[in-house]
Amino acid sequence: MNFKTIEWKNNKVVLIDQTKLPQEEVYVTCSTAAEVAEAIKTMVVRGAPAIGVAGAMGVALSALNIFANDFDTFFKKFSEDCEILRATRPTAVNLAWAIDRIKATLLNPPSPPFFKGGEEIKKAIVAEALKIHDEDIQTNRKIGQHGDKLIANGDRILTHCNAGALATAGYGTALGVLYAAKEQGKKFSVFADETRPFLQGSRLTAWELQKNGIPTTLISDNMAGWMMKKGEVTKVIVGADRIAANGDVANKIGTYSVAVLAKEHGIPFYVAAPLSTIDLKTPTGDQIPIEERSSAEVTHLQGIRIAPKGIPVRNPAFDVTPARLVSALITEKGIAEKPFEKSLKRLFEV
Amino acid sequence: MNFKTIEWKNNKVVLIDQTKLPQEEVYVTCSTAAEVAEAIKTMVVRGAPAIGVAGAMGVALSALNIFANDFDTFFKKFSEDCEILRATRPTAVNLAWAIDRIKATLLNPPSPPFFKGGEEIKKAIVAEALKIHDEDIQTNRKIGQHGDKLIANGDRILTHCNAGALATAGYGTALGVLYAAKEQGKKFSVFADETRPFLQGSRLTAWELQKNGIPTTLISDNMAGWMMKKGEVTKVIVGADRIAANGDVANKIGTYSVAVLAKEHGIPFYVAAPLSTIDLKTPTGDQIPIEERSSAEVTHLQGIRIAPKGIPVRNPAFDVTPARLVSALITEKGIAEKPFEKSLKRLFEV
Repeated sequence: MNFKTIEWKNNKVVLIDQTKLPQEEVYVTCSTAAEVAEAIKTMVVRGAPAIGVAGAMGVALSALNIFANDFDTFFKKFSEDCEILRATRPTAVNLAWAIDRIKATLLNPPSPPFFKGGEEIKKAIVAEALKIHDEDIQTNRKIGQHGDKLIANGDRILTHCNAGALATAGYGTALGVLYAAKEQGKKFSVFADETRPFLQGSRLTAWELQKNGIPTTLISDNMAGWMMKKGEVTKVIVGADRIAANGDVANKIGTYSVAVLAKEHGIPFYVAAPLSTIDLKTPTGDQIPIEERSSAEVTHLQGIRIAPKGIPVRNPAFDVTPARLVSALITEKGIAEKPFEKSLKRLFEV
Repeated sequence: MNFKTIEWKNNKVVLIDQTKLPQEEVYVTCSTAAEVAEAIKTMVVRGAPAIGVAGAMGVALSALNIFANDFDTFFKKFSEDCEILRATRPTAVNLAWAIDRIKATLLNPPSPPFFKGGEEIKKAIVAEALKIHDEDIQTNRKIGQHGDKLIANGDRILTHCNAGALATAGYGTALGVLYAAKEQGKKFSVFADETRPFLQGSRLTAWELQKNGIPTTLISDNMAGWMMKKGEVTKVIVGADRIAANGDVANKIGTYSVAVLAKEHGIPFYVAAPLSTIDLKTPTGDQIPIEERSSAEVTHLQGIRIAPKGIPVRNPAFDVTPARLVSALITEKGIAEKPFEKSLKRLFEV
């Protein structure tokens, strides 16, 4: 990849500004947890794995910025920042997963008696955040290796939203599978749904696939069904924001419609995601909170009004695709098949 | 309606500029057939019935602008203009229907020997164009009266694109049904799909329903399936650009996906259209030509680029919903049910 989605640099977090792509490739530097929280909320950084990594780096910034003489004071302030970061976006579980993982580090030694300004704790937290970042790329690579087996020469693959290098620390989940298939020399093409209202498909997926030399055709979301009907789509692959224990998949709004349409046309529907996206504590999709975002995302486009003033809007950012519509889940530990209750549990055991 | 979609005024055609709505309510005046052709092509006027009326008025302008001494010279030039207008948009059959209807008038008397500059012929052509305009509104009213029977108190009705007053000489087909139900005192609400890429739903349907006091919620196209899944949609009603003899329906891109999703959720899917949209000479949807429009409609929004440079795009303006997904067709002569081969033929006989 000739860009970095998220980077830890001189004790700061550098993010490619995904609200500015594809017009401008500019980077935002965050020095505090609050700045990272704002970047997540405004979708400067987005994509479940990427906001997990951003959350981890955000709490690392929090730790570096706390100057306390005892562990309890440190922990209180640190926990407050964790909750601010956790609350930025409710649907993707990776954010909570990353924050909880870092918090767990901190509840191990170095133990409070040797606190001394918390320098050791801070080091440990930063190290864990960087580990989460590096592991994410390795995880994506493994997802790609497993998923590659599902891609054939001549495939015309539809994807929705952006589950690529921009949605992760690098490489990507759904798009990581495509990058892996390309590295294996396979020839295929991609349809990118533009993915209203935030246009992750046209602005981000089209951009990064084009940058990586994968033939990509952009369509508006409502064309996907017709392309399937005309026999132009052979497979669907998407990412996920949270996968429940039964295999229900929360992902970008519109994913559910794509899954229904894939079923109607007998087209396999694959979901690629790391284990950090699988939430065994959430029994089914019904328990996944769905974020509603600002109506302005629907009524305006880059500041230009495209709907009448005062019109009510619904803007759920995600939907839930029931497990029955999912052909297989591609993870770093292999491909999970139905029944997902069993196969997902097994992934965490091996 | 407190606006006019299309009007004949001092031997000119006045159109509300639908590319400028909802930001600006401005009108375009056409003095020649070529200007009307351009207005149709650029979607200043759109919607199958409206472009039928615009086409009729366009050929009327053609007639008024031809100064010939004999019928053959007149007819040659007139026919050329007819073909220019006919070629502007291929999918909606109303345009060809209106042009052919006017041409038929002209092949009756006043007969060539009494040509004398064609004043009588010109009068007859203008009169026929105005008749097509007036009949369209009456037809819409009748569609509304029949369709009203399908609307119940408490309905939450999804519509796609704009089949309203703006898509016709006034009143509307699918939205005409809603206006008729409102006149009957029924209480219901509407979901308007924004309808990418041209945004007829957010720019036009939301605007005219809001203007007419019908509670309307705007959603992006990819939210429709999720709204259905959550039980928020009770019925779907859309217009049509061409209906084949077997009941297959060509309509705005995305209609097919909505129909599949409606079927998946057991939601009735109604199509409202005048007989001029039914083309018994087209046996099935497979024979309906689907217009592909400029990629800029997908890559740009009001002049702003929203996709990377050079990205290939598909932009079919319409799709075909197979008859099996259509619950009923609402016409000015009543509601047609399956099998449509029979019920549609019968409509033309009564």
